[in-house]
Amino acid sequence: MTSPGSVGVVQARLAEFDQPLALSCGQTLPSYQLAYETYGTLNAAHSNAILICHALSGTHHVAGTYDGQPDNIGWWDNMVGPGKPVDTNRFFVVGVNNLGGCHGSTGPASTNPATGHPWGSSFPFVTVEDWVHAQARLADRLGIQRFAAVMGGSLGGMQALQWSLAYPDRLSHALVIAAAPKLSTQNIGFNEVARQAIVTDPDFNGGNFIEAGVVPRRGLRLARMLGHITYLSDDAMHEKFGRELVGGQQRFSLEVDFAIESYLRYQGDKFSSRFDANSYLIMTKALDYFDPAASFGEGDLSRALSRARASFLVASFNSDWRFSPARSREIVKAVLDNRLPVAYAEIDAPQGHDAFLMDNPDYQSLVATYLQRVAAECQAALPLAGAAVATTDTGLGPTLDKATNASASSTMGGA
Amino acid sequence: MTSPGSVGVVQARLAEFDQPLALSCGQTLPSYQLAYETYGTLNAAHSNAILICHALSGTHHVAGTYDGQPDNIGWWDNMVGPGKPVDTNRFFVVGVNNLGGCHGSTGPASTNPATGHPWGSSFPFVTVEDWVHAQARLADRLGIQRFAAVMGGSLGGMQALQWSLAYPDRLSHALVIAAAPKLSTQNIGFNEVARQAIVTDPDFNGGNFIEAGVVPRRGLRLARMLGHITYLSDDAMHEKFGRELVGGQQRFSLEVDFAIESYLRYQGDKFSSRFDANSYLIMTKALDYFDPAASFGEGDLSRALSRARASFLVASFNSDWRFSPARSREIVKAVLDNRLPVAYAEIDAPQGHDAFLMDNPDYQSLVATYLQRVAAECQAALPLAGAAVATTDTGLGPTLDKATNASASSTMGGA
Repeated sequence: MTSPGSVGVVQARLAEFDQPLALSCGQTLPSYQLAYETYGTLNAAHSNAILICHALSGTHHVAGTYDGQPDNIGWWDNMVGPGKPVDTNRFFVVGVNNLGGCHGSTGPASTNPATGHPWGSSFPFVTVEDWVHAQARLADRLGIQRFAAVMGGSLGGMQALQWSLAYPDRLSHALVIAAAPKLSTQNIGFNEVARQAIVTDPDFNGGNFIEAGVVPRRGLRLARMLGHITYLSDDAMHEKFGRELVGGQQRFSLEVDFAIESYLRYQGDKFSSRFDANSYLIMTKALDYFDPAASFGEGDLSRALSRARASFLVASFNSDWRFSPARSREIVKAVLDNRLPVAYAEIDAPQGHDAFLMDNPDYQSLVATYLQRVAAECQAALPLAGAAVATTDTGLGPTLDKATNASASSTMGGA
Repeated sequence: MTSPGSVGVVQARLAEFDQPLALSCGQTLPSYQLAYETYGTLNAAHSNAILICHALSGTHHVAGTYDGQPDNIGWWDNMVGPGKPVDTNRFFVVGVNNLGGCHGSTGPASTNPATGHPWGSSFPFVTVEDWVHAQARLADRLGIQRFAAVMGGSLGGMQALQWSLAYPDRLSHALVIAAAPKLSTQNIGFNEVARQAIVTDPDFNGGNFIEAGVVPRRGLRLARMLGHITYLSDDAMHEKFGRELVGGQQRFSLEVDFAIESYLRYQGDKFSSRFDANSYLIMTKALDYFDPAASFGEGDLSRALSRARASFLVASFNSDWRFSPARSREIVKAVLDNRLPVAYAEIDAPQGHDAFLMDNPDYQSLVATYLQRVAAECQAALPLAGAAVATTDTGLGPTLDKATNASASSTMGGA
């Protein structure tokens, strides 16, 4: 056991897939690539892998930094690393950018090989189901037949839940954090305002803004500003900004008056220069569409979860009004209805939905303790045959060496 | 006592004011007009008047319909009328459009007499304080020295509260419904997103869109869509729209999928064709700025309310997350600290903030019962001298006849 640290300098990898992927929308992606990172070492039994799924605007860069970019720290660096709750001394951790994203995996900003132009508006609306299928292929490529755990917060937690339904025999544990079994009407409403902000931005150009040489920054900025409000609790915003006036007094103009305005504008501006507008549309639609009870159980989540075989850790945060604890308890109930093991914690945290990304001793020790048990199970597990893995994706051939390289280069921070 | 009915066909009136109005922002409006309506008859003692203050997008058209426009029903028609909780058989009810609005009172869409052009972006940012001063002048004009009650919901409730501070001797009762003593950080955040949607609309033209011959519809539409979400409870949205798909199945496109999307787009479109963008900015800024504790009590609402002399009815709705019951209780506490009479009710209503506009027997009987007591007080009151009233606004002369006409024409629905 090392002292808490960083995985250090890591390197993103690209996995190319030439086998067509049939999507929920009815279209087929003829080929695609996934950007991913790994930390830690896959054990001989290939039994210690953990997949981390990202939320709306997340990426495969989960932990560590990049060479020469010491400030480019992974989004869950406080959770993943040597001695951290997701302990890279014990686990082989995989982070992956989802299809439709804009950080290396194939998405609307990528070139459509059939046309030689950016996909833009013609990129298909991918779903959580599609992401999980693509992630399963990446697992094949990495020689992982079964994950010790699949985990994520928010939309990432939905993917962990979906894994338990789509590939019940390919994960032992699902860690579903700050998630919901489906969006509420209000959740969809907020997403729709964000989407309309983007699509009515004159620079959106029907989604083909790259070819037009512009960026719908206004729309993305508004979408992010709105999103941010829903990520934070009212109390957290009050605590951080209150009614503080940046100029000390009311300006009686459209300039920034309150500190919260300044914060939201800054967050919006920053996001609008780094995120692809079509990706934002796709990610929010994937959120809206996710509804495993409808897909698998005719509206009954318990029935949908009858397919699951995993053990669950479900965690919520008491100040999260975007995906409130009640939404997590719906998942817990459905798991219990199926007599599957489930641990549930409603964590006292003031930050709101964003709490799943924050330092919190209760939260971090919950995940740490749960995963220590999972690590003990991994050590007891029998090795799986590598050949059996490769046959699940026959067109591609093994790329285990590549993954091992990525893994080796990513454990510099560990001891 | 008549059976519940409508005030019938009513007529809006305009009151012109040539006496300059000094505003909170430091500017002075040299002249202005206020659109208003009245229902019922002012008694001989001038003691039975109730002022109704409107919320963000409300108007002076509180009750009844207009000639030839049977569907143009006042926004609080279920509350105001003969036999209704605000009983026009007993009370002389005044509705007024606030300064900066866009329904007849002087606002950014009005012509600036100094330039002959629309005010546009040069219209001053008026405040709740300014509105109350302007309303007091209208009261002078109508011969009302003291209101039996000033009442309103949401931003309207804030005006009722402000009346109790600015003119403590000019109202007997303040009915503060679904309000808050000041906006929370989150409230300001939502307003800021709405404002940024408007000001970044390329058609906004720095606020001078009328002269440019365009309307920033995109921005107004987004502002209203967002607003609507905050007016409704999550449960109410779920109850009304759920996750219903308008086409029966997911479209995997940017067309309308969910019924809630259709509803929000419709509301946004409707609003964007009827409301002035600059007025929306001004109204939201007035909301943000309102903070009587800061203005009068150095941050202490109890100290601010030491000026008040009115009796209070404070009402909140349990599903209102925009101005939650806790915000109303802050007002109640401050009133109690000053040993003033206060009745408080937290009403069980599923609709969220909009509940203050909805039919609800508990709510309506609360207001009815409270105002029956107020009506009894009015009958016991001594007549005030009309001459004494007129001297408070000497430059204008009496216009009581005008008000009486409006009142006479507005009681057709009564018996």
